[in-house]
Amino acid sequence: MAEKTKKLKAPVKPKRSWAIPIVLSSLATVGASYYVYYLLNAPPDMPKVNLEAYWGQYPMNPKPDQSIRPFKVEFSEVMINELRNLLLHRRPFAPPLEDVGFSYGFNSNFLTRVLDYWQNKYNFADREKFLNKYNHYITNIQGLDIHYVHVRPDVTQDVEVVPLLLLHGWPGSFREFYELIPELAPKQEHNFALELIIPSLPGFGFSQGPARTGLGSLEMAVVMRNLMERIGHKKYYIQGGDFGHIIGSIMATVFPENVLGFHSNMPMVFFHPMATFYTLLGSIMPSLIVEPEIYDRIYPLSKQMSFLLEETGYSHLQATKPDTVGIALTDSPAGLAAYILEKYSTWTNPSNKRASDGNLLSNFLLTHLLDNVMVYWASNSITTSIRFYVEALGSRQMGYKLDRIPTKVPTWGIKFKYEMFTQPDIILKLKYQNYLHTTIVDGGGHFAAFESPKILAQDVLQAIIMFREFWGVSKENVQDLPQPEPDMATSVHEFTVRDIYGRTIKLDKYKGYVLLIVNVASQCGLTDKNYEQLNELYNKYSKSRDFRILAFPCNQFNSQEPGTSKDIIKFMNKRNIEFDVFQKIEVNGENAHPLWKFLKRVQSGTLGDFIKWNFSKFIVDKNGIPVERFGPNVDPIDLEPHLGKYW
Amino acid sequence: MAEKTKKLKAPVKPKRSWAIPIVLSSLATVGASYYVYYLLNAPPDMPKVNLEAYWGQYPMNPKPDQSIRPFKVEFSEVMINELRNLLLHRRPFAPPLEDVGFSYGFNSNFLTRVLDYWQNKYNFADREKFLNKYNHYITNIQGLDIHYVHVRPDVTQDVEVVPLLLLHGWPGSFREFYELIPELAPKQEHNFALELIIPSLPGFGFSQGPARTGLGSLEMAVVMRNLMERIGHKKYYIQGGDFGHIIGSIMATVFPENVLGFHSNMPMVFFHPMATFYTLLGSIMPSLIVEPEIYDRIYPLSKQMSFLLEETGYSHLQATKPDTVGIALTDSPAGLAAYILEKYSTWTNPSNKRASDGNLLSNFLLTHLLDNVMVYWASNSITTSIRFYVEALGSRQMGYKLDRIPTKVPTWGIKFKYEMFTQPDIILKLKYQNYLHTTIVDGGGHFAAFESPKILAQDVLQAIIMFREFWGVSKENVQDLPQPEPDMATSVHEFTVRDIYGRTIKLDKYKGYVLLIVNVASQCGLTDKNYEQLNELYNKYSKSRDFRILAFPCNQFNSQEPGTSKDIIKFMNKRNIEFDVFQKIEVNGENAHPLWKFLKRVQSGTLGDFIKWNFSKFIVDKNGIPVERFGPNVDPIDLEPHLGKYW
Repeated sequence: MAEKTKKLKAPVKPKRSWAIPIVLSSLATVGASYYVYYLLNAPPDMPKVNLEAYWGQYPMNPKPDQSIRPFKVEFSEVMINELRNLLLHRRPFAPPLEDVGFSYGFNSNFLTRVLDYWQNKYNFADREKFLNKYNHYITNIQGLDIHYVHVRPDVTQDVEVVPLLLLHGWPGSFREFYELIPELAPKQEHNFALELIIPSLPGFGFSQGPARTGLGSLEMAVVMRNLMERIGHKKYYIQGGDFGHIIGSIMATVFPENVLGFHSNMPMVFFHPMATFYTLLGSIMPSLIVEPEIYDRIYPLSKQMSFLLEETGYSHLQATKPDTVGIALTDSPAGLAAYILEKYSTWTNPSNKRASDGNLLSNFLLTHLLDNVMVYWASNSITTSIRFYVEALGSRQMGYKLDRIPTKVPTWGIKFKYEMFTQPDIILKLKYQNYLHTTIVDGGGHFAAFESPKILAQDVLQAIIMFREFWGVSKENVQDLPQPEPDMATSVHEFTVRDIYGRTIKLDKYKGYVLLIVNVASQCGLTDKNYEQLNELYNKYSKSRDFRILAFPCNQFNSQEPGTSKDIIKFMNKRNIEFDVFQKIEVNGENAHPLWKFLKRVQSGTLGDFIKWNFSKFIVDKNGIPVERFGPNVDPIDLEPHLGKYW
Repeated sequence: MAEKTKKLKAPVKPKRSWAIPIVLSSLATVGASYYVYYLLNAPPDMPKVNLEAYWGQYPMNPKPDQSIRPFKVEFSEVMINELRNLLLHRRPFAPPLEDVGFSYGFNSNFLTRVLDYWQNKYNFADREKFLNKYNHYITNIQGLDIHYVHVRPDVTQDVEVVPLLLLHGWPGSFREFYELIPELAPKQEHNFALELIIPSLPGFGFSQGPARTGLGSLEMAVVMRNLMERIGHKKYYIQGGDFGHIIGSIMATVFPENVLGFHSNMPMVFFHPMATFYTLLGSIMPSLIVEPEIYDRIYPLSKQMSFLLEETGYSHLQATKPDTVGIALTDSPAGLAAYILEKYSTWTNPSNKRASDGNLLSNFLLTHLLDNVMVYWASNSITTSIRFYVEALGSRQMGYKLDRIPTKVPTWGIKFKYEMFTQPDIILKLKYQNYLHTTIVDGGGHFAAFESPKILAQDVLQAIIMFREFWGVSKENVQDLPQPEPDMATSVHEFTVRDIYGRTIKLDKYKGYVLLIVNVASQCGLTDKNYEQLNELYNKYSKSRDFRILAFPCNQFNSQEPGTSKDIIKFMNKRNIEFDVFQKIEVNGENAHPLWKFLKRVQSGTLGDFIKWNFSKFIVDKNGIPVERFGPNVDPIDLEPHLGKYW
């Protein structure tokens, strides 16, 4: 019923009833054409990659310097004085029109405040020190001096160090990750630690731009791969958003042997004929296509299209005439600040444009924002950075059709609420054949690392746990989590488990709910009937009552749950399971999960405490007390009257 | 046959034969939908216009100053010093990528030359004087101080003074018309003289911008109308290109009682469902839609679309976030010059982008270009000017659907070769019900007044002659042209006539051609056969031989050619007449045209010199000597053997 209401919100205007058949028949024709087009066009060939393409000035150095040189960010006296002078002598800007807020672009009244702060209060010496708090290096890759920040974890030998490449976008920089770095520091509960490599993309910040045309996203992916190899990494994880997503995605496509897992905070597959088709279809039949939680982020399409139209003027300009606007942005610090910081307002939440200060300081500190502007100003890289739009969006790069070449690299997306462009998983899976999981966040915007470092870090860590499990590298023992003594505990709420996506779940989140806890398996004779009826129970009561089902896969009964988490997720998806499923555990024996030891202690079985088979069931009341126990032979649907006692 | 070749150039790629039926059926569906849409949607209502809308700051002056105050452009010492200082201390710009010319935007190497010139050689005092050589005024309209240049003709009382409003666009200004002004000075052969009113649009140059949102094209049309009324003009002609076209077109639509004629150097009807339909249809059946001379300017559509995509980034940005980019352009003279002058390169000829200097100085003087930049710099109006894109392209303004409301104001277009967007006349006539004529120019670009003042001036004058004839105001006597004495002349090449569009044609342009000169009428019993066969003759020989037909409408035989030039043009268009047709004349009697007196003298008739009826025919040889004469009863096709003697 909720869906019906949403359908009514679709862009077809109700008064023009004659228009509906026309629109539908046009859509059908367009759709059919697309589908035929798709069927007749196999995925394109993998583009040929030149790993040694040279992007520097000629003549080439016959013996290129392959050393890795330490680097420090420097805000020189000369530069600071010049900048302050330019800010002081800025020209009078046109006052904003009445009540426009940020809707005509950066509000010039508020800009005065930003510029005064930059000129008088931004502490250049402190910020230089801050930016240098991590180690910076420069090394020459394919003729270009490439800059990166390198954060090595301080851990003992028995912890595996895994490298993670963090890729920024435009108008971002390595600076955006500074608040994320501590959040990604080694954690006690993990048997791995992250080594972070945070480059400046070629032409961005302190990385040199190319001397000639052609360094597009694919070519940038090659530079990034070569940088990782220079540092000594052949296998690594990647995280990115914005251009970081695009380049990471290409690395996962073209260098699957190097990429262990790809985490994106702007997951998208834009240039794929079926993506368009599905998107259109989703406006007619949302239930086939779109997860209900993100429906409003995509539909009505007219709203999304007009928002995109409103927000992509800069991109249109940069993809066609970057050098023209680059002159003004190079020459004017006020212009550069307005041009860059406008994005941190509207892309963080579209409604910010209504505020006269763009709500800029509600989400970021001015000093932090100016740090990022300083990366562009101090390196004088705005023009070289925006030239990348020509290469990335040009017809040559589009011709590679990289969005249509699938990759098997495990991929994980996080969808923040106000990201400019959201797609349903069905589209993402067209390309990412091992698309493991989507985290949907009910807030946050485009600049995830900068705005929501804690949420992003937690999600990246969970993704890496999952990627490692995908590769069979690690099975983090659930018993590693802090647990009460099963003999001392009084409620299931005291325990901690991991869900099937690897996320740590404290069971106290179920306070106030009646629970049905069950051990499950996917290849058991009881599987079909039990899953069907569990679904039925869940659908019937999860909304009308405070009721939850907690399913724990277990392989202890005739090995009828042999798969990985990934297999189990697939199985769940196939059966449309919406209740909560957790990581595989043992329920009997010494390694049984403490939660299950507790359940068995409180509700002992008829023939002994031990669990007899798959689909044993415990009812837990709202206080977390296990109140009833049933064997595998009791059908879930027969539990209705029992559950009813505890609502 | 030429058309067949052109069809093959259409964007459908030949290899994908399966795609053709799909594309065609999609096109048909889209076309049919459009047509139904069009049929079901009558032209929208004329929008309500508030002639007194107030755009100034509050509080309003209860007794607004309605005086007209003289104004002088001033380049103050303070401003010049600040500007030179900013130019001197400009920041180092990123060097252009190898061999890109202007294709990534303004080439920063060439910019150095422009900026050095501006800083050191541009003679501010001289240019200030130059700009002040015409009278400038400012007057307050609807709360805004509106600036305009006013050029009154110096003529005697018997010459009628007619006002012409000249409307600039973006990034143009009143300055662009300075070379046009002398070309529009009164001419001996005209019985009228032009009074020129050249405003700065609100927010552009020295005209104040609005204090709040909503001053779109329609509202600007109101301001311009009120300005003309303030000056004392209730009826006037309008000329414009770019936004000047849009505003002029709206004035012709909303104030037809004020506009005597509209001349556009960017004639277009963009937002009309049938325009899209015709444009698509033209790619399949060009002969139905497009004049062959302009086919290459429109098709293949893919080429035009990709050019437009490449050239409209600035517009996309300015229509969404003008205030952001406005900051940088306000603050940096280098940025402003690059941003404005880039347009004068690529919009004058798309191939200019391949040149490292954008061929800028092949078409314009640097001083003139910088004059125009100075209009924006000295008035600090770049931000207020680009805000107009939000208003003009916003949904409110689009909602008026002004392109779909027809106007009866006589309209005349001139199509320069490299104008960014060209449409066939069939589309223009959807809106301009009295679209009298198109002049097709085989060169020139978007900035007609600035680049091609002579051609534009001649065309505007011819249009005004035609507009005046349309209104029956004037029949400029063809005998007014300098002519030889018919008794003394030795060749038709010595005579001068006016063509049906009012253009002065010296017949020496026909030197080396065999001519068939004939007096025609459109309501005669002989009309059908004669026109048919004249067409046949012309089609057969005008390309293979040096042969031309000169037809002179004449109303002296039973009043069988009663119409105006406009009627005759309509008649010609209906019959696809491609040979040359001239203004109506007399062939017998005292007022007979001197050319015809000469023809009759040299080739006297059987029963006397006088012309007997419509469709009398003279053959003239390549030297201009009338060599044979035939009566109305001789069919044109029977002249073939006679003509053959003179090839």
